[in-house]
Amino acid sequence: MTAPPAEDPTACLLIIGDEILSGRTQDANLKFLGERLAAMGIRLKEARVVPDVETMIVEAVNACRARYTYVFTTGGIGPTHDDITTAAIAKAFGRRVVRHPEAERTLRAYYGDRANEARLRMAEIPEGAGVELIENHMSVAPGYRIDNVFVLAGVPSVARAMFDALAPGLKGGAPVYAQSVDAHVREGDIAERLSAIQDAHPDVAIGSYPFMRHDRLGTSIVARATDKQRIVLVIAAVAEAMRALGEEPTLGPAP
Amino acid sequence: MTAPPAEDPTACLLIIGDEILSGRTQDANLKFLGERLAAMGIRLKEARVVPDVETMIVEAVNACRARYTYVFTTGGIGPTHDDITTAAIAKAFGRRVVRHPEAERTLRAYYGDRANEARLRMAEIPEGAGVELIENHMSVAPGYRIDNVFVLAGVPSVARAMFDALAPGLKGGAPVYAQSVDAHVREGDIAERLSAIQDAHPDVAIGSYPFMRHDRLGTSIVARATDKQRIVLVIAAVAEAMRALGEEPTLGPAP
Repeated sequence: MTAPPAEDPTACLLIIGDEILSGRTQDANLKFLGERLAAMGIRLKEARVVPDVETMIVEAVNACRARYTYVFTTGGIGPTHDDITTAAIAKAFGRRVVRHPEAERTLRAYYGDRANEARLRMAEIPEGAGVELIENHMSVAPGYRIDNVFVLAGVPSVARAMFDALAPGLKGGAPVYAQSVDAHVREGDIAERLSAIQDAHPDVAIGSYPFMRHDRLGTSIVARATDKQRIVLVIAAVAEAMRALGEEPTLGPAP
Repeated sequence: MTAPPAEDPTACLLIIGDEILSGRTQDANLKFLGERLAAMGIRLKEARVVPDVETMIVEAVNACRARYTYVFTTGGIGPTHDDITTAAIAKAFGRRVVRHPEAERTLRAYYGDRANEARLRMAEIPEGAGVELIENHMSVAPGYRIDNVFVLAGVPSVARAMFDALAPGLKGGAPVYAQSVDAHVREGDIAERLSAIQDAHPDVAIGSYPFMRHDRLGTSIVARATDKQRIVLVIAAVAEAMRALGEEPTLGPAP
């Protein structure tokens, strides 16, 4: 695998919630964020899933924000007792939690008589510099940014709305493009040729993924790089190697 | 959230692969392992997703194996150049990689003439004490255990087969049971009552998850504990709180 140029921004996703670790809920935010960030030239280098335990959230936030350009968290910012993300984020930054006036106005305007204490907890965010709200056009209660940490809801539709709202403020890098080529060849049969192709193209990351379709084993090869021309060259070489094994390759969409 | 008794075994899942972080592939192993481990009384306390980068795998393996009873890794043990998990695991343990005689015999017996060097790489595992193979009845190439780290394939059907093979060797704890109750009440309306129920039952972890069904918002409450009787009490109290808000609750299967 080829490392991206050192100047490209990096990211880490912190998925917060017992329900993901217990297997009750299938996470859908990692796949979404991975795709969106790659298209913006931001390298998602790591993801962590942590339970609703304050010390573990604090530790993960502090480890990741020191290491990556951006940290995104999902989950734990609702109105119930198990929503402890904001308390943990504030602790990680050594800040107090305060009620944000603009967030409170938005919630009161939306909920009217039903703006109870539980709902107004969703207006509480860490105090101080480098904090700004992230708009939520799905369900009003905002996310927020604190320095390089973006705190988003866990519900996928809301997390997506918040990401759409914050994305224009991110500094992207060289976008990573990808193309795939599939054939009913087995990984073990194409591995040696593939390794030679990778050695000849160190600036392209070549991934190999086995699949089973219509009861037949096959391999999907994905080439990823910032230079589309290089991807096209690699995919052509892989397709040729597949033909040499007697199978007709199917190319994915051009990068 | 209530911490489990200190003596219960814990676990961490390490998901290895660029394809998960790029958003190309939706992980399915976390949900599976989370469910299976919970049923065995093993607490999945954390999961990490790391790219196909040796230094990052080494660091994550060493951080997690020191901290949790069991570590499971998925991905990166196939025959191609991007399968670097075993090299990284060996490095994390300060061991050499050697060809395991039994794994080699199994692979040669299965592949016959097609047992090339790439395929025989799948017989290479770290050397030394505390290493044993994990059977793979799906696709032959074995996983392995090294001390408290279990190295599994990334393809979900193969990861499951390997987990089934190794599970009898794990030391379980008190199983965690769960029951849910759903109603078309909003989280913000039930939050205060829920908080009081949680305070009264500190030995039950109560999670609250909003949902949207038939265009109506609702809340699913999940109670988790090692004592089924305590779950039943909590679910009854939550159901009563839902009725007090004018909505009929739907109970999930008994714990």
